Order: sequence, then structure tokens, then C-alpha cells
Amino acid sequence: MNPKDPNFEARVRKNFSEQKVMRLIGARLTKVTAGECEIVVLMREDLAQQDGFMHAGIVTTVLDSACGYAAYTLMPESSRVLSVEFKVNLLAPAKGEIILASAGVKRAGKTLTVCTADAFADNILCATMLATMICINGDA
Amino acid sequence: MNPKDPNFEARVRKNFSEQKVMRLIGARLTKVTAGECEIVVLMREDLAQQDGFMHAGIVTTVLDSACGYAAYTLMPESSRVLSVEFKVNLLAPAKGEIILASAGVKRAGKTLTVCTADAFADNILCATMLATMICINGDA
Amino acid sequence: MNPKDPNFEARVRKNFSEQKVMRLIGARLTKVTAGECEIVVLMREDLAQQDGFMHAGIVTTVLDSACGYAAYTLMPESSRVLSVEFKVNLLAPAKGEIILASAGVKRAGKTLTVCTADAFADNILCATMLATMICINGDA
Amino acid sequence: MNPKDPNFEARVRKNFSEQKVMRLIGARLTKVTAGECEIVVLMREDLAQQDGFMHAGIVTTVLDSACGYAAYTLMPESSRVLSVEFKVNLLAPAKGEIILASAGVKRAGKTLTVCTADAFADNILCATMLATMICINGDA
Repeated sequence: MNPKDPNFEARVRKNFSEQKVMRLIGARLTKVTAGECEIVVLMREDLAQQDGFMHAGIVTTVLDSACGYAAYTLMPESSRVLSVEFKVNLLAPAKGEIILASAGVKRAGKTLTVCTADAFADNILCATMLATMICINGDA
Repeated sequence: MNPKDPNFEARVRKNFSEQKVMRLIGARLTKVTAGECEIVVLMREDLAQQDGFMHAGIVTTVLDSACGYAAYTLMPESSRVLSVEFKVNLLAPAKGEIILASAGVKRAGKTLTVCTADAFADNILCATMLATMICINGDA
Repeated sequence: MNPKDPNFEARVRKNFSEQKVMRLIGARLTKVTAGECEIVVLMREDLAQQDGFMHAGIVTTVLDSACGYAAYTLMPESSRVLSVEFKVNLLAPAKGEIILASAGVKRAGKTLTVCTADAFADNILCATMLATMICINGDA
Repeated sequence: MNPKDPNFEARVRKNFSEQKVMRLIGARLTKVTAGECEIVVLMREDLAQQDGFMHAGIVTTVLDSACGYAAYTLMPESSRVLSVEFKVNLLAPAKGEIILASAGVKRAGKTLTVCTADAFADNILCATMLATMICINGDA
């Protein structure tokens, strides 16, 4: 995992701070290393589905962002990152105080980057994602 | 599409009202018919990703809920519905005032139901989902 | 659906004839129009899984090829097409004499094209695919 | 990973031998342990797509079978296993002499089991799968 931009962490953190929805759900970026990213959300009543657990869509929001930023660590300085597609398997109810999404790059290409991510609710695996991200060249 | 429960609409609307995250993002259930469901969210600044469009995770939250309720219209009265897994392709930025997710049942089985859904931003197709829902028997 | 290459059908048919695996499984290209493709395989004992139905992987091979060629009809003359990823839901056993895969373009982009396809076993829906294809520029 | 059936390996190997398509493509079951399975296919000209590499659908056939059997090792003696759905990302051309698919169980439930698998072409990662398998009770 060789980042082209040595300042990838600052670039990722700045981009994250511009995602207003991350503030809405109270997400925090807890780890940014080359090809990896972790995001944490504390459970709140207003993030719940009908049974009181975190809604699968919110878990997906966090997994998708973690995958996007894991990919983005390896992209050039002037680039942007967008989600092409992702698949999520919900493995257990997202039942707990702390929801953690941990993402890593599976394969980084020039245009497309494939990532995997796991979500844990109080350390219990509750969801997994396989995602494709695209690098949009800032100069294009 | 033969609903087993003639009161499926009331059951779906009650369940929707219990999903607190739907209130958080301002989602409204605009259509519930046998095997179909539509949900609308008005764009707000706090639902945005870094470019100002609706975050893919929020679009997914709405698509997932629309698929879940489309499946739920055909399930028995005492059942619950859970998402097993879904895949989303992001086709265009979710750029617009009104985001509409329209879901339909592709195949309803006793245990598993497969749904498809499209999301539109101001009537432009912006995302599509293929999802598997599971029926949990209320008596089990 | 505006094909950039008026001779797309001949180009698709030539490419199909070069896929040796299509011959191995006895696949025939039965329809090629702008943004659409149909492929048919006759059931044979040596394509079966343990219950005697067509193996999900062979159904997927046909669905993937149908999606790839549907996308390829809209790509430029000098391009190549590759599968980026796909998701398949198996909806019913592929039980029958004639397996037909019918694919269409959902959204054609400059680089990425998203397709959907359904597979039918003796006219009964048995599988559905959502796929992403990439256009490789022949001059690159 | 606690197999309910101590004779899972013999059961898996018997089932594999009944999949005629495995013989057609020359697949061999090289490893069966609790929650894990490996299948190998030697490259042949008649398994190729238009560029001479193994067709994505054949790679998927092997990945799907590896996932199915990984799941099946943990299922009860009288059960059957079926693929519900899977997603594949093609990461590099399947270019090489030996294609190996290695699958493991991510989460085993009573009804549904989620597996991941990687495919390697001469030891280079070329594809990855995330799959859902269902246990059909033999007594049902």
C-alpha cells in the first residue's frame, strides 16, 4: 500500500469534515492509515429502526464512508473519490452502544479501487461490505 | 402479488412510524400497495456528502426501507421483516430537491423475498438496489 | 440508447464467437440490439449441479455474458469490454430445457455501464443480475 | 466453527462428485475443513473468454461452489445447501495455469450462512466473492 500523497491523512480528514451527514449521525474518524480507515458512531435513539437497533442504512452509511476513505488514502492529491457500488450483508442486529466500521483496500487500481469493510456493534460483527470506489481526476 | 394480510397497508405504515431514523432524515411513505412501496425524502444540507449531494448511505437507507416495506406488504400479519443483504449501484449524483425511492417485489418466497428499487433525484435515476429480505415469523 | 458504432451487432457477434467457453456450454447469441442482448443455452447433463438443475455458476456465466454484450453494443468500435463486478440472486432452480438470459443497459457512462439481466428456465424467472461493465479504450 | 456432522468431509466430497459441471470444467476439491473449502481448476482453452483468460463466469462457478461447500461443512447431515445470492468483484484477469478458489464461512446461522472467497490465478488475486447460502432441511 503505497500512498501517492504523503499528506493523505490530512486530505481525508478535511474531506470527512465536509460530509455534513457525518455530523448528523455523530460519526467520528478514528483511524486513517494507508489503505485503511475506521469510523465510529455512538448509538442514538434517532438512528434506530423499528426494533430499536441501528438502521441497516445508517450502518451502510458508515461502512460506505469507511470504504471510500480507505480507498481515498491511496489516491492522488488532486483527486476525488465516489462510490460506484457496494453490497452489504447484515449478519446480526446492530445492537450496542458503539458501532465501529473498519475498512481496508482489497485492490487499488488506477481508476477503480475495491474495498472490504466490517461493522461491529460492541465488538460483535454485525455487517460486512464489498465495495467499488472510483477515482475522479481533479484535473479532468 | 397476493397479500396474505388484507390490512397490510396499516401494518406497514405503523412499522414505518416506529423507525425513528425515518423521522431524522425526514422520510415520508408516499405509496404502499401489494408488493410495492415508495418513500420520499426532501434534500437537506445535513444529509449531504462532501460535494453537497445526498450521501449514498442516506439514499441507500431510503432504498433499503422501500424494499423492506415492499416485501412486508406480502408477509403475514404476525411477521417481522429484516434485510438479509443488498447491493446498490450509484448511477448519478443524488442532486436535486426530491429524492424518491420506488421498490417492487421481484420474487416472494415463504422465507426470502427479493426486491428491486430505483432512486430518483428530481426524476433523474440516481441509484438502483437489488435486495434480499427475510420474513421472521412472529410466532417463532 | 444511441450506439456510437453502427456496426455494433457484427462486432458483438465476432467477440462472442471468440469466447471459447460459450462453445463449451453450447451458448447461442439470439438477440443483439442497441443496449440489449439475449443468450440461450440448452440444458445438458454436464452443466448440472447436484440436484440435476443447471449450476448457478453456468447461469451466471450466461447472465454475465449477456450483460457484457448489452453494454458492448453502446461502446465505441475500438473498445473492449470487461466485467467489473456483478451480483446474482438465484430465485428458483434453473430447471428446464431452455435457459434464456436477457440483459439490458440501465445506465451507460463513458467508462462504466450498469446492466440488469434476468434468466428464465423454460420461461420461469430463475435468476437476476445487476452488473457493472467497464469500457477499455482500444487506443489506450 | 463447530461442525454438527463429524462426517462433513465425506458428505461434501460425495456432493461435489455429483456436480457434473465440476467434471466438465475439470475442478478438483483440494481442501475441506470445518468452515473452509478450496477448489482448483487447471486453465484450458475451452474455458476462455475473448482475450484467452478464464471466463469470469467459470471463475464464479468455482467461487460459488467453494462458498457453498464451506457453508455445507457446518450444516447438519440430512441438509442440502443452495446459493441464495452472491456478488463477485473481478480484480485482475484470470491469467495463469492454476485457478484456485479459497472460501471461508463469515457467519453461520441456522438458516443462512454468509461466506467470502478469493480466487487466485497462479497465486495472484483475481476475484473475490461475498455470498449467502441457505440450508434446506432434509426432513422438511
